[in-house]
Amino acid sequence: MTIKKIFSLGLLVFLPISLAAHYLGFTPLIVFLTSAIAIIPLAIWLSTATEEIAVVTGPSIGGLLNAIFGNATELIIAIVILKEGLIDIVKASITGTILSNLLLVMGLSMFLGGLKYKEQEFQPVVARVNASSMTLAAIALLLPTAVIYTSKVVEPSANRNLSISVAIVLILVYIATLIFSLKTHGYLYDVSVVELEEEIKEAHGEPPNMKLWVGVLVASTIGIAVISEQLVGSLEEATAGLGLSPYFTGVILLPLIGGAAEYVTAITVALKNDMELSVSVAMGSSLIIALFVAPLLVLVGQAIGQPMDLDFDVFQVIAVAIAVGIANLISLDGRSNWLEGILLLATYLILALAFYFHPVGAIAG
Amino acid sequence: MTIKKIFSLGLLVFLPISLAAHYLGFTPLIVFLTSAIAIIPLAIWLSTATEEIAVVTGPSIGGLLNAIFGNATELIIAIVILKEGLIDIVKASITGTILSNLLLVMGLSMFLGGLKYKEQEFQPVVARVNASSMTLAAIALLLPTAVIYTSKVVEPSANRNLSISVAIVLILVYIATLIFSLKTHGYLYDVSVVELEEEIKEAHGEPPNMKLWVGVLVASTIGIAVISEQLVGSLEEATAGLGLSPYFTGVILLPLIGGAAEYVTAITVALKNDMELSVSVAMGSSLIIALFVAPLLVLVGQAIGQPMDLDFDVFQVIAVAIAVGIANLISLDGRSNWLEGILLLATYLILALAFYFHPVGAIAG
Amino acid sequence: MTIKKIFSLGLLVFLPISLAAHYLGFTPLIVFLTSAIAIIPLAIWLSTATEEIAVVTGPSIGGLLNAIFGNATELIIAIVILKEGLIDIVKASITGTILSNLLLVMGLSMFLGGLKYKEQEFQPVVARVNASSMTLAAIALLLPTAVIYTSKVVEPSANRNLSISVAIVLILVYIATLIFSLKTHGYLYDVSVVELEEEIKEAHGEPPNMKLWVGVLVASTIGIAVISEQLVGSLEEATAGLGLSPYFTGVILLPLIGGAAEYVTAITVALKNDMELSVSVAMGSSLIIALFVAPLLVLVGQAIGQPMDLDFDVFQVIAVAIAVGIANLISLDGRSNWLEGILLLATYLILALAFYFHPVGAIAG
Repeated sequence: MTIKKIFSLGLLVFLPISLAAHYLGFTPLIVFLTSAIAIIPLAIWLSTATEEIAVVTGPSIGGLLNAIFGNATELIIAIVILKEGLIDIVKASITGTILSNLLLVMGLSMFLGGLKYKEQEFQPVVARVNASSMTLAAIALLLPTAVIYTSKVVEPSANRNLSISVAIVLILVYIATLIFSLKTHGYLYDVSVVELEEEIKEAHGEPPNMKLWVGVLVASTIGIAVISEQLVGSLEEATAGLGLSPYFTGVILLPLIGGAAEYVTAITVALKNDMELSVSVAMGSSLIIALFVAPLLVLVGQAIGQPMDLDFDVFQVIAVAIAVGIANLISLDGRSNWLEGILLLATYLILALAFYFHPVGAIAG
Repeated sequence: MTIKKIFSLGLLVFLPISLAAHYLGFTPLIVFLTSAIAIIPLAIWLSTATEEIAVVTGPSIGGLLNAIFGNATELIIAIVILKEGLIDIVKASITGTILSNLLLVMGLSMFLGGLKYKEQEFQPVVARVNASSMTLAAIALLLPTAVIYTSKVVEPSANRNLSISVAIVLILVYIATLIFSLKTHGYLYDVSVVELEEEIKEAHGEPPNMKLWVGVLVASTIGIAVISEQLVGSLEEATAGLGLSPYFTGVILLPLIGGAAEYVTAITVALKNDMELSVSVAMGSSLIIALFVAPLLVLVGQAIGQPMDLDFDVFQVIAVAIAVGIANLISLDGRSNWLEGILLLATYLILALAFYFHPVGAIAG
Repeated sequence: MTIKKIFSLGLLVFLPISLAAHYLGFTPLIVFLTSAIAIIPLAIWLSTATEEIAVVTGPSIGGLLNAIFGNATELIIAIVILKEGLIDIVKASITGTILSNLLLVMGLSMFLGGLKYKEQEFQPVVARVNASSMTLAAIALLLPTAVIYTSKVVEPSANRNLSISVAIVLILVYIATLIFSLKTHGYLYDVSVVELEEEIKEAHGEPPNMKLWVGVLVASTIGIAVISEQLVGSLEEATAGLGLSPYFTGVILLPLIGGAAEYVTAITVALKNDMELSVSVAMGSSLIIALFVAPLLVLVGQAIGQPMDLDFDVFQVIAVAIAVGIANLISLDGRSNWLEGILLLATYLILALAFYFHPVGAIAG
């Protein structure tokens, strides 16, 4: 935990720098880069605060808090982008977050963990429930695309109604998975929650200071909203300057910024041979994105007059199907080694190459 | 068994009602609805008669009988529709029966069973053989579509020849699975057959009356053929009156009518914690549809001058691939809980929504 | 081993026959057929020589040798075809080799082995690593197709750059799997290597004669290059004369010729109940094709001015996805029986039918 804290305290210096860059009228590229770096420590502090508060409140409320604030950074960034009307980039960042959690985070954890330990184990029951839920979520997210792709003409209203209906079903399924993991079958997950709590307790030797951490939670949430505005405002000009398509930015760059907290946690615990928790973080995070964040964005989009449907372009559908398939294949047996990490990372790399070489216009689907 | 019998005896009253509705010239909607309800008890009696006769004849002939009469209702309805030349609806009902068995029946069984028992187990060996056969069957059924979809021009004769060749291969594979389950590896399946027999014996305490049940078998088979004619005759007008596309009717409504017997059996035994038999019924039933009923319809279609190929539309292909994939994923480990039931049901619901919102014209492929 | 040797010595008589046919100006059909038969014993001797030399050099260098010479026949034939500029046939033969190894070879092994033994077992850990690598390789090979298929216009240069990048990533992954299997996790594979060595030792009772086998290796390699030229030279005319499309030739016929050695080995050891080695040969061989031969051909194509990209046509993509999916499903549990063999063979047969009926023009993608 200490390395993580030093790292995230150090990066906080980019918070004033990025604000200065924005208000002093620096080039969009500089505003974009400094904002991107500034969000990383905020995301880590938000996530740390959620975990610390969870230790005090106990597993049930803690689980709920985690379900809500666990991917708050991604959610905030996505809502800011949605408000700007950049709906294709929101969609691309949903796809990209799922890809980076399943392939990059899990791949790095298995690779680095596997270099240190010959074979690492985790409970296959949880992996199995996660794999099934993740598969359902991927299917649900991508079906509207299939409907549109396989029929010549689709009325926009039918597409919107289908997307809204699917979004509601997904949120209900998400509530069901919460009931399953927190109430009826909590014992399956207990190990990892207890481990996390002990790890946190061990780190200070005393119970966490509730007021302090609520403060951190609020402060980092506000910080992320503020900085996200700058990030999104400078996004298009900055990435165009770098020669990157908005497509590549949405699928590859944004998830790296928003998901920093999960990356640090997952890799840290993998190096402590707690592959159980590491896989949980990576899979759980993509699950929250697919079952909660994405459908919420559909409903929020309706509310704020930026109606977002679930019509992703076909290549994103293929990429998510590939990521879910290979992540299931590798995680279902409850064991990992460095080669499996390499395979996940290579899949991510090849998909990133494909998105890089994919013609810019393709984002229009 | 008793609840099932009372239920199916009660519903028999719709048999004269639907006949009256038809001959007294009631509206197509009423004829359709009463015929639909009247078929349900007939299907249940047909299936009960098959099981009772199997107790007397022993597992080998019983297995054969079950293989032939197990999905007789679906087969009869499909042949009647085929005779009318409504080939797209036949195809849609094949897709729909596979979807409803794998997702709705298995989902309801796992959900309701899982509410009563924390975790339910079944033999993974049988699930594995079923999963592989089901995957092969899905592939085989859907390959002709892929051939047509990926090539600009296909001569109708090539399509027909391919469909007939594939149909013959599938029926040969079906015979192989029968030899496997009844002769060379019968011991893998023995448990469920023995359980079913004991359950039936227990229910009366005496061996079943052979003559009586053969009579029931013949009577219910005739009943279904007769009522199916009415059902199909009123189908198009009735569903148009309800604002449903023939597509939705074929994929969602017809399988609910034809598969009632399996639903009742699968859920009843799941509530008795016999998940083994429940999964067997659901998976076995889709297997018979894909390996035997569908190819038989191709050959029957040739014989009666209503040539049916296996060119499904692409969205049906996607739906079947999704259903087989998630059913395999959930069943392969030999365990189930209520959340897995919910996941299957949610997949079914989302697919049904997609078929509902899918533009009507899509059935033409 | 003795049957294999008699068989492959007997077939050597076709070597002078095919040379005579070529130089005496026989019809292309006769040249093609005799060359095809002549390659089979050469491929078997090449593979035997590699195995014998591996016994002397020990597992590490032996593994490397096997990685390089294991699929030399396929590689030589492919390079000769590539040199002729028949790029679509090279691609088709890559697809076809993967299909025939995963479905035909593994299917025949499981079927024939399963007729002799009720249930055969093999180590699931190796199957799992193979399944994941095979899935990655299939994904990687087929992604460029997906990129092109899902976007309206793709610059040829983007396609070529993507194909080259992917080829390099694949070769790096291949090196990683070699390090995994030969260095860090060699113990997982030891059993099969030791078994193979013992089998070879047992066959002569003395250590193999190094000089002799290096001579065989060189001679059979040269023989294959020479005969391949004749084979490829007569290919187009001969198959057109038989009424076969170049597509069918590439996907079905060529892999049967090039892969003869693997077929004989895999089936021989399956009949000795060494399913471990049999599955290893079949899966390992497709893995080498996908991770090493195919990317090498992309790079070789660049070098010799016959640039080959990885844009397969969509139907080949579907076929490979199906083959990898069903092979994983059947092999992942580490057990096999004759029905699983039948299922693999039926999948191969159905795919072959589809390729046979697929319109000729489709090879253009």
